[in-house]
Amino acid sequence: MADGRDMEDLPTRRSLPDMATLLGIGGALALILIALVLGGSPEAFLDLPAVLVVGLGTVMVTLASFTVKDVGVTFAMVASALRDGGPGPRVAALKILALADFARKHGVLKFQGQVLNSLKDDPFLQKGIALVVDGLPEPDVEAILAQDIHATQQRLSRASSVLRRAAEVAPAMGLIGTLIGLVQMLGNLDDPTTIGPSMAVALLTTFYGAILGNVVFLPLAGKLDRNGADDTLVRRIYMVGVLSVARKENPRRLEMLLNSALPPAQRVDYYG
Amino acid sequence: MADGRDMEDLPTRRSLPDMATLLGIGGALALILIALVLGGSPEAFLDLPAVLVVGLGTVMVTLASFTVKDVGVTFAMVASALRDGGPGPRVAALKILALADFARKHGVLKFQGQVLNSLKDDPFLQKGIALVVDGLPEPDVEAILAQDIHATQQRLSRASSVLRRAAEVAPAMGLIGTLIGLVQMLGNLDDPTTIGPSMAVALLTTFYGAILGNVVFLPLAGKLDRNGADDTLVRRIYMVGVLSVARKENPRRLEMLLNSALPPAQRVDYYG
Amino acid sequence: MADGRDMEDLPTRRSLPDMATLLGIGGALALILIALVLGGSPEAFLDLPAVLVVGLGTVMVTLASFTVKDVGVTFAMVASALRDGGPGPRVAALKILALADFARKHGVLKFQGQVLNSLKDDPFLQKGIALVVDGLPEPDVEAILAQDIHATQQRLSRASSVLRRAAEVAPAMGLIGTLIGLVQMLGNLDDPTTIGPSMAVALLTTFYGAILGNVVFLPLAGKLDRNGADDTLVRRIYMVGVLSVARKENPRRLEMLLNSALPPAQRVDYYG
Amino acid sequence: MADGRDMEDLPTRRSLPDMATLLGIGGALALILIALVLGGSPEAFLDLPAVLVVGLGTVMVTLASFTVKDVGVTFAMVASALRDGGPGPRVAALKILALADFARKHGVLKFQGQVLNSLKDDPFLQKGIALVVDGLPEPDVEAILAQDIHATQQRLSRASSVLRRAAEVAPAMGLIGTLIGLVQMLGNLDDPTTIGPSMAVALLTTFYGAILGNVVFLPLAGKLDRNGADDTLVRRIYMVGVLSVARKENPRRLEMLLNSALPPAQRVDYYG
Amino acid sequence: MADGRDMEDLPTRRSLPDMATLLGIGGALALILIALVLGGSPEAFLDLPAVLVVGLGTVMVTLASFTVKDVGVTFAMVASALRDGGPGPRVAALKILALADFARKHGVLKFQGQVLNSLKDDPFLQKGIALVVDGLPEPDVEAILAQDIHATQQRLSRASSVLRRAAEVAPAMGLIGTLIGLVQMLGNLDDPTTIGPSMAVALLTTFYGAILGNVVFLPLAGKLDRNGADDTLVRRIYMVGVLSVARKENPRRLEMLLNSALPPAQRVDYYG
Repeated sequence: MADGRDMEDLPTRRSLPDMATLLGIGGALALILIALVLGGSPEAFLDLPAVLVVGLGTVMVTLASFTVKDVGVTFAMVASALRDGGPGPRVAALKILALADFARKHGVLKFQGQVLNSLKDDPFLQKGIALVVDGLPEPDVEAILAQDIHATQQRLSRASSVLRRAAEVAPAMGLIGTLIGLVQMLGNLDDPTTIGPSMAVALLTTFYGAILGNVVFLPLAGKLDRNGADDTLVRRIYMVGVLSVARKENPRRLEMLLNSALPPAQRVDYYG
Repeated sequence: MADGRDMEDLPTRRSLPDMATLLGIGGALALILIALVLGGSPEAFLDLPAVLVVGLGTVMVTLASFTVKDVGVTFAMVASALRDGGPGPRVAALKILALADFARKHGVLKFQGQVLNSLKDDPFLQKGIALVVDGLPEPDVEAILAQDIHATQQRLSRASSVLRRAAEVAPAMGLIGTLIGLVQMLGNLDDPTTIGPSMAVALLTTFYGAILGNVVFLPLAGKLDRNGADDTLVRRIYMVGVLSVARKENPRRLEMLLNSALPPAQRVDYYG
Repeated sequence: MADGRDMEDLPTRRSLPDMATLLGIGGALALILIALVLGGSPEAFLDLPAVLVVGLGTVMVTLASFTVKDVGVTFAMVASALRDGGPGPRVAALKILALADFARKHGVLKFQGQVLNSLKDDPFLQKGIALVVDGLPEPDVEAILAQDIHATQQRLSRASSVLRRAAEVAPAMGLIGTLIGLVQMLGNLDDPTTIGPSMAVALLTTFYGAILGNVVFLPLAGKLDRNGADDTLVRRIYMVGVLSVARKENPRRLEMLLNSALPPAQRVDYYG
Repeated sequence: MADGRDMEDLPTRRSLPDMATLLGIGGALALILIALVLGGSPEAFLDLPAVLVVGLGTVMVTLASFTVKDVGVTFAMVASALRDGGPGPRVAALKILALADFARKHGVLKFQGQVLNSLKDDPFLQKGIALVVDGLPEPDVEAILAQDIHATQQRLSRASSVLRRAAEVAPAMGLIGTLIGLVQMLGNLDDPTTIGPSMAVALLTTFYGAILGNVVFLPLAGKLDRNGADDTLVRRIYMVGVLSVARKENPRRLEMLLNSALPPAQRVDYYG
Repeated sequence: MADGRDMEDLPTRRSLPDMATLLGIGGALALILIALVLGGSPEAFLDLPAVLVVGLGTVMVTLASFTVKDVGVTFAMVASALRDGGPGPRVAALKILALADFARKHGVLKFQGQVLNSLKDDPFLQKGIALVVDGLPEPDVEAILAQDIHATQQRLSRASSVLRRAAEVAPAMGLIGTLIGLVQMLGNLDDPTTIGPSMAVALLTTFYGAILGNVVFLPLAGKLDRNGADDTLVRRIYMVGVLSVARKENPRRLEMLLNSALPPAQRVDYYG
């Protein structure tokens, strides 16, 4: 038993990837496309220079506030947020309770080997347990885990601020493009038949900027923030559990404390 | 007496549902409808594509920043906020004073059974009293209740941020719809008689976005925030009371402390 | 002497009502009215449907974010802010110094009766002194008074947020009204002579919304916030003084501490 | 030596008045004036009713959020900020180091008389030294000086918020004035030759509001905030020094601590 | 060994200058220029008075909120941010670990001379090590370094606020310039052929303001903030390390703590 076999029924580690973001952004873009097609001439909404000024311009101006690496990290975080929802707080609570129960029964040293390896999908939890197994004093464990949570929040918040910056830049580039179009049009008012189409083209950059900012960048930034809050909650649950294990507390007390952090519908009942 | 019968005159648990939100939003929408009818052609304000771009688009873009479950929880919280105002701070103070007085006279163990059951409408208070009955040390009770208050605030704040996000998205989708209409109209300026009606249709999405954002989503978000502040106050009153019971303090001191948290007109006078 | 008679020369309790708010709002509205009359046709600025959509609509949408009682409390607080400036910090400092000096000379028990009654215009101070007379331990007095200050700030901040919400809603309702007017006008472009007057009427709701928001609601919200900050300062001065009396400190030390919280020009010199 | 004569070489107390604000605002207004003159008809930009609605209206609406005294204090603070830059952090550090060195050599009692008098341009420092000379315990000195810093910040922040409020009100009054002009113009579209000039006049209030808000009030508010931050830094330096003197610490330690708060280029080297 | 030679393999002190800002701003300006040239008449976008009102006006109004020195410091900080990325957190961690390991082996006194000199590119680290070598008590070292971090953040935040202020002022000056142009144009509507070109010129200031604010000032402010956050992280790493050296802690514990502050991909493995 103490060889970690009763750890096998640890709850599933990952929830299914959350489709809300892809569905939401894709659906909104599809709706806009349908509106263009229904309007009769969707090709009137495609203008390469406008795409370049708004699209490439937004990328460049956003880049200027950060570094190439920051932007790369942001892409990686967005990809990860789209792919994978992470363990929910309830799963995390069940997992740490199972570990606390195991530690109560067999001692923390039995975590070595198989159990520690089985946590490799949760590096934060794995690291916390490893520190306890190594016999580090509890205040040191707390300092290291709290520092990790803080640093992770800082990184997530930078990624989210890259996207928020892009969401501000896109409409600004749209406005600049429209101003260029307007000035060019106003300088050539001689032929009234060209006024309408010129205005239409001038408005395209505003249109692109509004879509990029509101339908693409802001939702992604919001999603990163939201997942970051959940991720922090999961890490705090892990930290509370690891410290409880380090202090050799009764896991029933841990269960009560963790349940206070979970929504009523997700509370766990490990000790039934 | 000690069987909990003197708990029967506990103050009413719930105030009447607060109609301000339904009345306010309904009344404002009715006012707008009246203005449309008085203007002569209310049917000119109905355009299905515009409704889809703004309504469905807002739902999709909002969804993209969260998960399906977040949006579901938000709906549930709005429904609950419309249905039920919760106990007010004064009722909460009277209730916890009655419990403290009961504990003083009969001891906390007499809470078991009937009294604890009678608190099932107030799960937070029930849980706090149960922890005290179980003999948990006071610092543990405080940690668990404070954690519960914090986690509840976080959940409420996420629900409110879903609505605030929707309130930002709706005007943005309205602007995008109007830009689509403007570009389409400007591409077909040949027939001047169509300019007015085309512009009118283009403005409809802005109109819908302004109503959705300002008359529907923002008031609901504000109401959630407001009720959340009241709910936190009630939970704090319960926590102060439960801890006072756990410390076996004199309920008169509790009354003074609770009264400091209540508006002058709602102060309680349990000990006359 | 010890019967409280040397308390008779307590400084005046209330400053004169501050007219700045009434004068400021009234004067600005008068200026606008003069501009309308000078323009020749003030009656062109009166349109009952526009008044209803913006005025009634603002009330309803604001109400939706709060409760009927919140709005009532806000009205009461505005009325009180217009009527009465409260004691200033300097008057408060002089008053609490007189009380501290009295306590030093005659003991806190002599506060009972006449002196306590004479404080009925300052319920917070009266309550603090009463707690000291009752012999409550100083930490309890501090907890109760600090809780009262916090709860009062929360109530003031809700009242101010009702007005800020109204100040946001009013221009939004103005925009909605103008959009209604524009769509109606654009649908009937056949008769060019009606375009101007229709546009004029459509702009009236924007005009009303700008006035309601900027000239009425925002200044009132600002005034509540400003008075709330002063009120908190006065309560803190009272609290510092009451705790000093409870600790039987030398009033000269209290005078130095209070003077640090007062503007240079308002410092008191009780002990000459 | 101990009579304070070695205090004579205290660094200059005040830096030269900082001209950036006067130059900046004056220069920007001059630039705008030049643009008007170059445009050919500067008199077209002067309209008395527009000046009254925006200028007087802004004063009145701003006043409504505050009291007459708040506005007076704000004027006085702006005048003081334009006149006098205060001692910089480096000068303050040198001064307090000289005082600490003097105290080390001659004892704090020798501050009485000439030295204390020579500090009358720095009332905060003078007060702090006087408290130490009076033998007040160090925690009391810290409480009094910290309270003074906090209260001064509150006063500065109110003055700055008066100006920020004015900077918000001015464009709003400009918009209201323009709406008045537009409605009046749209009601009289019969004579097309008057449309342009009427529009021009209507836009003047927006023009005035943008200048008042962006070129006058916001820069002044920013300057007050900026000077307030410097002033707080200077007071903190004085407080750290006074407390160090009260604790009879080695001034070399004080020098190291103060240098950490100064920019690299301004670090002092009192002990060479 | 103890002469500091094993310090020679300290990691490279500086990363390559980060080109993202220059590339981003330059690229966006180039894109806009290309759009102007493709539009046919780039010279129509050059108007000297417009350049003066927006460019010089922005400088003057920004200056008015600060001092000449603040603006100079901001320029210097921008130049430094463009030139030099500073050591990254990983390099900083490796460096302080090498120093901690050296101190463990040879004692802190061996830092004197060569090692301290080799740190002259990192004045903060050099100062911290020097304080430890001088035998200052650890709480004093912590107070001095924490004060330095705080003061550096304040200076960076002022530089960034100068740029943010400029980014707000530029569009405001653009609006003012456009209003001047519009009023002048509306006063001379007699010749319809001049309307278009006049409008075009009027819009140029808005165009300049949008570019200055969004493509130049905001990205620079964002870059300063971003680098400031990295710089603070590096200083915190140095401080944690210096204090660990002062406490003579095991460098392996320091490595664990530092790794918690680094992104997973940048963690160091000094002790293999």
